[in-house]
Amino acid sequence: MRNRIRALVASRNWEFWIIGIIVLNAVTLGLETSPSVMAQMGEFLKFLDSLILGIFVVELGLRLYAHGPKFFKDPWSNFDFAIVAISLMPASGAFTVLRSLRILRVLRLISVVPSLRRVIGGLISALPGMGSIVVLMALVFYVFAVMATKLYGAAFPDWFGDLPKSLYTLFQIMTLESWSMGIVRPVMEKFPLSWLFFVPFILCTAFTVLNLFIGIIVSAMQEEHDAEADANRQAIHDDTGLILEEVKALRAELRQLRSQVGQERV
Amino acid sequence: MRNRIRALVASRNWEFWIIGIIVLNAVTLGLETSPSVMAQMGEFLKFLDSLILGIFVVELGLRLYAHGPKFFKDPWSNFDFAIVAISLMPASGAFTVLRSLRILRVLRLISVVPSLRRVIGGLISALPGMGSIVVLMALVFYVFAVMATKLYGAAFPDWFGDLPKSLYTLFQIMTLESWSMGIVRPVMEKFPLSWLFFVPFILCTAFTVLNLFIGIIVSAMQEEHDAEADANRQAIHDDTGLILEEVKALRAELRQLRSQVGQERV
Amino acid sequence: MRNRIRALVASRNWEFWIIGIIVLNAVTLGLETSPSVMAQMGEFLKFLDSLILGIFVVELGLRLYAHGPKFFKDPWSNFDFAIVAISLMPASGAFTVLRSLRILRVLRLISVVPSLRRVIGGLISALPGMGSIVVLMALVFYVFAVMATKLYGAAFPDWFGDLPKSLYTLFQIMTLESWSMGIVRPVMEKFPLSWLFFVPFILCTAFTVLNLFIGIIVSAMQEEHDAEADANRQAIHDDTGLILEEVKALRAELRQLRSQVGQERV
Amino acid sequence: MRNRIRALVASRNWEFWIIGIIVLNAVTLGLETSPSVMAQMGEFLKFLDSLILGIFVVELGLRLYAHGPKFFKDPWSNFDFAIVAISLMPASGAFTVLRSLRILRVLRLISVVPSLRRVIGGLISALPGMGSIVVLMALVFYVFAVMATKLYGAAFPDWFGDLPKSLYTLFQIMTLESWSMGIVRPVMEKFPLSWLFFVPFILCTAFTVLNLFIGIIVSAMQEEHDAEADANRQAIHDDTGLILEEVKALRAELRQLRSQVGQERV
Repeated sequence: MRNRIRALVASRNWEFWIIGIIVLNAVTLGLETSPSVMAQMGEFLKFLDSLILGIFVVELGLRLYAHGPKFFKDPWSNFDFAIVAISLMPASGAFTVLRSLRILRVLRLISVVPSLRRVIGGLISALPGMGSIVVLMALVFYVFAVMATKLYGAAFPDWFGDLPKSLYTLFQIMTLESWSMGIVRPVMEKFPLSWLFFVPFILCTAFTVLNLFIGIIVSAMQEEHDAEADANRQAIHDDTGLILEEVKALRAELRQLRSQVGQERV
Repeated sequence: MRNRIRALVASRNWEFWIIGIIVLNAVTLGLETSPSVMAQMGEFLKFLDSLILGIFVVELGLRLYAHGPKFFKDPWSNFDFAIVAISLMPASGAFTVLRSLRILRVLRLISVVPSLRRVIGGLISALPGMGSIVVLMALVFYVFAVMATKLYGAAFPDWFGDLPKSLYTLFQIMTLESWSMGIVRPVMEKFPLSWLFFVPFILCTAFTVLNLFIGIIVSAMQEEHDAEADANRQAIHDDTGLILEEVKALRAELRQLRSQVGQERV
Repeated sequence: MRNRIRALVASRNWEFWIIGIIVLNAVTLGLETSPSVMAQMGEFLKFLDSLILGIFVVELGLRLYAHGPKFFKDPWSNFDFAIVAISLMPASGAFTVLRSLRILRVLRLISVVPSLRRVIGGLISALPGMGSIVVLMALVFYVFAVMATKLYGAAFPDWFGDLPKSLYTLFQIMTLESWSMGIVRPVMEKFPLSWLFFVPFILCTAFTVLNLFIGIIVSAMQEEHDAEADANRQAIHDDTGLILEEVKALRAELRQLRSQVGQERV
Repeated sequence: MRNRIRALVASRNWEFWIIGIIVLNAVTLGLETSPSVMAQMGEFLKFLDSLILGIFVVELGLRLYAHGPKFFKDPWSNFDFAIVAISLMPASGAFTVLRSLRILRVLRLISVVPSLRRVIGGLISALPGMGSIVVLMALVFYVFAVMATKLYGAAFPDWFGDLPKSLYTLFQIMTLESWSMGIVRPVMEKFPLSWLFFVPFILCTAFTVLNLFIGIIVSAMQEEHDAEADANRQAIHDDTGLILEEVKALRAELRQLRSQVGQERV
């Protein structure tokens, strides 16, 4: 029984149906954003949404039964579980924002379609190698944010009033959005030397982002390369192996010849 | 007859004349944008434009006759056909915008000049490998757009009033244009936690674009590399082949020697 | 006499002095931008500037004499000649803007310092390979500019009034500067579908720039690679050459042995 | 005694404690930016800060004693020394800005954590190869800044009033922030041809930054590559070495055989 369910939830047909239901759900959730559509067929859309949620719960239940406790060892299963769990939470009172999180269900497409799963897996596998640079970036941000709050917090409370505001403003400056006309020129009117703070910040973060970027490119190429270099080395190894074999056979024959000659001599 | 026309429309001279006519057409269409030039010599420009369109129709007819139904198998021929067809459509009433599409004829330069055709071919051939990342991007955009419409649609109808508006605004935010001063800071005045929505969106899309980018670079390099690695391997294969040949000849001689010695022994 | 001058103008000492004079000139031209400095020592700065120009003229004369007509075959010599010629032109009346071009003399640093000359040479050598993409870019710009002038020229004369204005505005949009809040949102208020024009334009140019970029990276890597691959292949060729030699020697010995055995048999 | 202290300050435990103290200091300095927290427990935070500074001074003293004059040969030790020295300077009167530099102490994390030290080392080691391009960039900036001051200084004193202002504005233009709507369009109203100045500037700097960027990528890849190519060549060398050995042994045996045959013949 368990094995049959396991085979069922892993079959191509099942995958195909689940993709179809997710896409349908994406469409209904998209239609729900339109007040005119909601006025006309809101009840039907809500019913369809509940139905689809029911299907997802049943599917998750089947997979939980099929795989048992191993279910929670697969990160994608946890991902599916979390997304369905969010949809089941009561969406009233303080949690009204949770209603809009129902659209996250569409992200289940990632866990169902293998090629998307692979892309995300690739992105995530690139992260650990970048750990040091991310820590460095966090350090740069924290140091500059504390300094900005101390230096400009009193004069520009909207931008640098407290640590979170400074962090947000520095993030904006890092993206270069209105950094000069919007932020630094007004600040320079009060603190003429403040460019000594902001220009180095821009150069620092640009340089760090550049390095993050180069790190990812180099490691992406490295992987491709290693595979290729291995194939290359193998091909050469095969070539030289043929020669080695031939030479060894030659040596064996020579040894025979020597023994022939030796016997003769006797 | 057919073969002679086929040879004609494929000849260097023909190509040269067509390029000349396209460039001339580009100039006349450019001049048509100037009211003062139109006042002076508008009639002449319109006549020239009709004449050139006539030449294009004749050229296309000749190529259609020369290649027969195979004509529609070449994507560039279809491209030329579509562009001329657009120019022939009546440009009145609701279709007045079609008049401005006549300038697309200049794009025929791409289908005529081989080096441009190759560049476009290269760009297009890079697309399929990027399919998964484009789907992922579409997913991210759709999910965030639905959420933005639900969360901020009522308060900011100009930016997030419906799904298309949200998609456009999110595209603007992805390009980092006025994202903070123009959009997110005003939104944060009403929803102080909305940075929790927009900053992750920026990081998500930046990371996805980065990966699209890296994918294209790596595959571009890969191609160059593979060609080189093959040449490399071939060179080594030739080297080792020489040795193998020599060793095999050696072995044959040794065998002869053994048979000589063997005969002697008898 | 000519040879001695040729040796002189190519000597390290001469180069050193010219660099010094260029840097001094850079400083004096920089000081001339300050009204307070000009009020105090303007006469002296102008005298110094004339003196340095005189030195440059003499230096150029010496090099012209030393190299003869070959002087004009070296692009850097032409560069130096053009820059000094600009400084010698009368800077009055309509040509008052030429006075500010005197600062271009500082660019002579590029032609004097070998490492800078090499960098610029590298940049320029990367250009021809990019020709097709630049033509493609020009085509995209021209087509979109003609369309924008036709479609939006009447309603937004400041941005799309004529072809040059449209080209400038599209360049601004390509750099993503205020493209949405500054240009496209106002245009969309009159033409709600104009995003169908601008968003594809942004995607087209972004994609073309990306390809320009990748082309330059790939060709830069290619060069490095080719050198390395050659070295690699040579090393392997040397290795296998040793073996081949050894095997050939072996064969020669075997042939001797065979003749020994053959003689014996007789 | 000295050796024991040297071992102590290099031990993992010591490193662990120093990291803990730096993180604690980062938190206290962050809390000091909040007026409400300062009102509640400002005295305690200031005491903690002094205590931590005391610990840093003692740690630095121990390392100075342990390593003697060699201490100043390590750039990271100098870095630590400078940071602690800044914190010890009197922060009153004109030096009140120095108080906000105390947060720089958090950067000691870089000198303590080996992986961060390595990242920064990597960044710095990439700089010298980029020297020529940085000089070129400085040259481009200087030349354009002098010209901008001369041409537009009188009309737009806020942006191009003097050399530093022009340099700042050009830096803003290079980052593409509000370059057109904010700066160049207003300038073009007075000087219609000024796009001939700014568009080339943008293209020049974009091209130079692009080359800086490519230079860093290529050299980063080069390093990875060289290591790999060496390993590759070594593997092939080993393969061919085996064959060579075998062939040499063969030749030795053949020589023995020849001497056998020779003896027999006698």
